[in-house]
Amino acid sequence: MEHSNHVRKENRDISISDIWSAKKKISSLLHKTPLIESYILSEKIGRPVYLKLENTHNTGSFKVRGAANKILSLSEEEKKRGVVTFSTGNHGLAVAHVAKKLGIEAVICISNRVPKAKIDSLKRIGATIEIYGDSQDAAGERCYQLEREKGMTVVPPFDDPYVIAGQGTIGLELLEDVPDLTDVIIPLSGGGLLSGISLTLKSNDPGIKITGVSMEQSAVMYESLRAGKPVQLEEQYTLADSLLGGIGLANRYTFRLVQQLMDDIILIPEKEIAGSMAFMMDHHRMIMEGAAATSIAALLDDQFTPQKGPIVVIISGNNVDLSVVQDILHNYSGKDITKHTR
Amino acid sequence: MEHSNHVRKENRDISISDIWSAKKKISSLLHKTPLIESYILSEKIGRPVYLKLENTHNTGSFKVRGAANKILSLSEEEKKRGVVTFSTGNHGLAVAHVAKKLGIEAVICISNRVPKAKIDSLKRIGATIEIYGDSQDAAGERCYQLEREKGMTVVPPFDDPYVIAGQGTIGLELLEDVPDLTDVIIPLSGGGLLSGISLTLKSNDPGIKITGVSMEQSAVMYESLRAGKPVQLEEQYTLADSLLGGIGLANRYTFRLVQQLMDDIILIPEKEIAGSMAFMMDHHRMIMEGAAATSIAALLDDQFTPQKGPIVVIISGNNVDLSVVQDILHNYSGKDITKHTR
Repeated sequence: MEHSNHVRKENRDISISDIWSAKKKISSLLHKTPLIESYILSEKIGRPVYLKLENTHNTGSFKVRGAANKILSLSEEEKKRGVVTFSTGNHGLAVAHVAKKLGIEAVICISNRVPKAKIDSLKRIGATIEIYGDSQDAAGERCYQLEREKGMTVVPPFDDPYVIAGQGTIGLELLEDVPDLTDVIIPLSGGGLLSGISLTLKSNDPGIKITGVSMEQSAVMYESLRAGKPVQLEEQYTLADSLLGGIGLANRYTFRLVQQLMDDIILIPEKEIAGSMAFMMDHHRMIMEGAAATSIAALLDDQFTPQKGPIVVIISGNNVDLSVVQDILHNYSGKDITKHTR
Repeated sequence: MEHSNHVRKENRDISISDIWSAKKKISSLLHKTPLIESYILSEKIGRPVYLKLENTHNTGSFKVRGAANKILSLSEEEKKRGVVTFSTGNHGLAVAHVAKKLGIEAVICISNRVPKAKIDSLKRIGATIEIYGDSQDAAGERCYQLEREKGMTVVPPFDDPYVIAGQGTIGLELLEDVPDLTDVIIPLSGGGLLSGISLTLKSNDPGIKITGVSMEQSAVMYESLRAGKPVQLEEQYTLADSLLGGIGLANRYTFRLVQQLMDDIILIPEKEIAGSMAFMMDHHRMIMEGAAATSIAALLDDQFTPQKGPIVVIISGNNVDLSVVQDILHNYSGKDITKHTR
């Protein structure tokens, strides 16, 4: 794998100044996202619970922050050759959106496990789609092939300093809105979102507790942390399909950052993901994808041990097939999900 | 009706400076709402269509702007005596939210037509609920009774200079984000939202076209404009229940403002409201209340004749019963709503 444009960054840590630079850079393309208090969750937990609405970005997820920072950091020469990426969907949408706004060509490599609704949306934004293999890793191979053959720049979904710094801008917005926050719950897959936010928050107060959340099946980062090095797992079906995908055996940044910065991790069974999706529709009229719902499930889980101050839950995205939404409304709407039975 | 604290404003127009004052005042309580381009709607209409996400406020609708500006404009003495209002739900939620954040007592008078889900949410915020009569006008009588008996300040849902100026702050955010906009589509009930936004936009460019939208049944402002004076109508069932309610036979501000500022009005049949709600779930994973969906229906309606530039659609709120959402998903999801048959 060639990452020629990252040489400058490879041998040093990402710092808070990279995140401030990202904020400056992406502010022309993106809005600050809303932060709202959830009265029903505050009532249940007994302290203020705030929702950071990353589902309100143009393509429905936080991924647009990292993509924007990466692409805006390219030279004019690199921009002309276009960008390419691989993704379970949200990152692809984000890259397509940013490229369109900047008038740059974008090729998106995806696996054949990506839901149809996501592919339709990608095409509408004007990206070229390449379907390749049945895992995110396979799609990734095709992506680096295009980099070698056509000189396009790869926009990695998470393991990249610019992408991590872009996601880290969420942390700056949190400090602006809830300076006394003590807990943040963050969906965890490749670790770009968690690394970025944690870098920002811990630079302000290392005592802020970072809780990562994954689904029970195929939690690659969790198993990698247990093994002490990146591992591979077979992908199984999960409602939190945006959290599927490897972390890369040659992981350069996020494995180490998550290892250093995350204080706790909770794994969520499928039933609780579904229940949390229904809960958020019942009480906030908000359609969340399964990946985002894991963070609500973690908040309500017995294993979650918060500190004493306000809690922020990252609502990471909303890209879910409507047929899934209908099933969940039918089976879980109106039920109390706060009594866990496991 | 006594409006003792409005004497200063009663005999003059609301000006753009009142809206700038409102922006300054409410910025401590409220965030700027996101504006996103809808790729699918841009494709259908053939020019950029932007959605102004007023459903992302804490209580799920734009109403919190007007309520915040009104309550923040009270004297300390008035704040101590508390506030009271009448509402089909969204305004009540907004007043309860603002009062809670400021530590003020709030009584909400509502009619018995308000859906249960809305009442539950009001109670959770800590407001006192008074159910009275079967129309918004009846609830309004009870509200002014409490004003006389207990010296509470009425926060009217729309016909008030501070409330109108609060809603007008949406217009300032639109000029910031889409300075070249030529069309805005705005749900129309009492006219506070439309008056406020139109005042702001027309002060910048009188050529910006304002299209108001109501449901076909019980469109009180529409019938009042036709009659040349405020009229009363019996309330009929509609999916756009947030748009129900009289404009007040003694209307002081909004009737005249809507008469002066609105360029066109479109009335939407129930079936198109339902179809638009399904469309927004299908394509934006956004749960919208019927009132908000009227504006999407208007955009896609043959009667809508836009100008040449970008179009903004106001997504006014999301307070809808989940059972309604389930019915609509079941009956309308996946259908093309752009071919109108009326």
